[in-house]
Amino acid sequence: MATDDLDTRTRELDRAHVFHSWSAQALIDPFPIAGGSGTTVWDHAGTRLLDFSSQLVNVNIGHQHPAVVDAITAQAELLTTIAPSTANLARGEAAKRIVDLAPDGFSKVFFTNGGADANENAIRMARLHTGRDKVLSRYRSYHGNTGAAIAATGDWRRIPNEYARGHVHFFGPYLYRSEFWATTPEEECERALHHLRRVIEAEGPATIAAILLESIPGTAGIMVPPPGYLAGVRRLADEYGILLILDEVMSGFGRTGRWFAFEGHDVVPDLITFAKGVNSGYVPIGGVIISDAIAATFDERVFPGGLTYSGHPLAAASIVGALDAMQDEGIVENARRIGEDVLGPGLRALAERHPVIGEVRGEGVFWALELVADPVTREPVAPAVIGALKKDLMARGLLPFAADNRIHVVPPCVVTDDEVRRALDIYDAAFAAL
Amino acid sequence: MATDDLDTRTRELDRAHVFHSWSAQALIDPFPIAGGSGTTVWDHAGTRLLDFSSQLVNVNIGHQHPAVVDAITAQAELLTTIAPSTANLARGEAAKRIVDLAPDGFSKVFFTNGGADANENAIRMARLHTGRDKVLSRYRSYHGNTGAAIAATGDWRRIPNEYARGHVHFFGPYLYRSEFWATTPEEECERALHHLRRVIEAEGPATIAAILLESIPGTAGIMVPPPGYLAGVRRLADEYGILLILDEVMSGFGRTGRWFAFEGHDVVPDLITFAKGVNSGYVPIGGVIISDAIAATFDERVFPGGLTYSGHPLAAASIVGALDAMQDEGIVENARRIGEDVLGPGLRALAERHPVIGEVRGEGVFWALELVADPVTREPVAPAVIGALKKDLMARGLLPFAADNRIHVVPPCVVTDDEVRRALDIYDAAFAAL
Repeated sequence: MATDDLDTRTRELDRAHVFHSWSAQALIDPFPIAGGSGTTVWDHAGTRLLDFSSQLVNVNIGHQHPAVVDAITAQAELLTTIAPSTANLARGEAAKRIVDLAPDGFSKVFFTNGGADANENAIRMARLHTGRDKVLSRYRSYHGNTGAAIAATGDWRRIPNEYARGHVHFFGPYLYRSEFWATTPEEECERALHHLRRVIEAEGPATIAAILLESIPGTAGIMVPPPGYLAGVRRLADEYGILLILDEVMSGFGRTGRWFAFEGHDVVPDLITFAKGVNSGYVPIGGVIISDAIAATFDERVFPGGLTYSGHPLAAASIVGALDAMQDEGIVENARRIGEDVLGPGLRALAERHPVIGEVRGEGVFWALELVADPVTREPVAPAVIGALKKDLMARGLLPFAADNRIHVVPPCVVTDDEVRRALDIYDAAFAAL
Repeated sequence: MATDDLDTRTRELDRAHVFHSWSAQALIDPFPIAGGSGTTVWDHAGTRLLDFSSQLVNVNIGHQHPAVVDAITAQAELLTTIAPSTANLARGEAAKRIVDLAPDGFSKVFFTNGGADANENAIRMARLHTGRDKVLSRYRSYHGNTGAAIAATGDWRRIPNEYARGHVHFFGPYLYRSEFWATTPEEECERALHHLRRVIEAEGPATIAAILLESIPGTAGIMVPPPGYLAGVRRLADEYGILLILDEVMSGFGRTGRWFAFEGHDVVPDLITFAKGVNSGYVPIGGVIISDAIAATFDERVFPGGLTYSGHPLAAASIVGALDAMQDEGIVENARRIGEDVLGPGLRALAERHPVIGEVRGEGVFWALELVADPVTREPVAPAVIGALKKDLMARGLLPFAADNRIHVVPPCVVTDDEVRRALDIYDAAFAAL
């Protein structure tokens, strides 16, 4: 079949038979992706796009990294799948690499299929470990789409899915749209912690199993917490015997220029959830990194949770391939340098030229541009503006990531200086054309 | 490293770093699996086991089928992962093959990571389509381990995880341990349907979105429904405007000797959930097959559900490889023939020789042996008996599947007559040694 026909067939099959996430099915026209390499993807006809979305902010190592592809094909030839009740070398090697990156006091990994069920199982562990029920999480958050994960989520997507009890939401720090009438990062931090303390006191500390937070809320807007916030949450949790679960599904494994986003925030959680960047999503997998105190709870007591593909060998092999390559090639360091030297300064320069950019925030390869209709009132731009901008960016050769009134600038961690400069030119032209 | 050392390293890494499903972590000693082929798996030292578990009843096509391995390695070289919002040929081809196997009136597939989130999303679709809240499911069932899926589950595993509202359980047909004082399949069927009608009336039909049933409850005991039951449930659902979701996660894609277990029961559901056998679990994937009426609900209304790896290309390619090979090689027909001619008769003969086998039930390669301490009272054997039996079966070279007081005899669909005979001899010797 000619390459154009393959794109046509891809679109036809998609429209006829594929039901898409978070969409009105008749109103979408998905771009067909046939292949990719590094920071670039293409369709069958050869249209190339610079991937500044990392798909769903998961392709940290870039597309089709040969070391990860090789790890997958080698394991595929050996053994793809086994039951979780057995042992497997690839699974053990993957777990070891993950705990080696975690803080001291974390020795065990419970593998899941993705981020949602990682949060599900972390919540379950916290409830069983503490004997308490409630889970506190913030508005403006995203923790996944299964029963407990979606109830913990703090954006509109939670609303039609609230079939769980035991979840309470609070406001987190977000100075640009402060819920606390704060005007400085210090004030925002202090008041956000005071607010959280009041929620804990009002709910009853003895009813609260865990506080669940993305170390940096991702889909909700990449709100890097002010210095001291996460450490303050840790102190509150300790004061009341509450566990702290940090969701590193999007922020972990290099995205911020660190292995975990919480590093540098003077905080160690009790449970860490992950997916996406751990193997860049080459094979579906996620999991929970478990502190020794919580792991010990289930030494002689059955942990009532599991899934068929827990610790899937093919996925585990891809973790080994991805993490080894990320270390060997300094990919996390590249993300940090790009953020500090090229992407961060470049985005801030864009904001100076385009008043529609109300705020630039982020670090590493994890940035949000908040677009506003009015820089004084900070009124978000209308959805149609974001729709038009997405379309224009794609026409200019860049695959963007948009959420609400924001463009998230989230390329793979392997992005080069040159690719960043090309992308900045494209964003610049698209903002100028608005 | 020598092969014995690889087994040792596998066990060491596992015990140090891998947290296992449904287990007390200090009380397990998982068998290391290094490779497999067809119905056999082995450790690094070369100990070979006949796999009559299909791992978690998922390896329908057998271990390391070359067509599926080739499909995976070819797609791995091309493109492993893309965002669900894009289109992809492998994803479209997989969806087409699945709807081609489904009844008329099903055109779309929503892909998930496994069976649990397939049920989560089917429940969500049913609630949004009907505008109703409650989901009815049976005691003695298993629908997965995430928030809504575990609340819908009807075994002990639900109990420590009941953090969801809107779930109601009822009793299903199970003549060997009838909840309805029935003595014949006809009576069990009629009374089970009457019981379900009374639960619907008592809960209020207008509050019930869906009845969720495994076509044949799997982990709960492989209770093949009596003739007429599923059709009767369909009629009840229609009478009250309730949707019928059939969970084919374990029973689908050849396990019963049919593509779907509900075929032959004169019933068409509104939603079908699947995972496991669709690609034998070679890459994690599951999904929902959606009837056109429900799909249309989301044509212009956003479906509020999704996940990063929905329609993962690597997993989709493995579905294409697996389903094509299953059709080309008559693998479903093999499962039916084995069940009718070799495995079913063989297990019934075993039951005649060993009074500990209280009942044999199943079809295809989907059988349960219910073990009882007393054939008259039908008191289940103690957990220690099952533990000893599992150990003995493994020592005799067979990897068994045990659940509660039962041995499930669930080899891959590719199992040969000779392998069944070898397994029957092993079961026979193990029961004799009890």
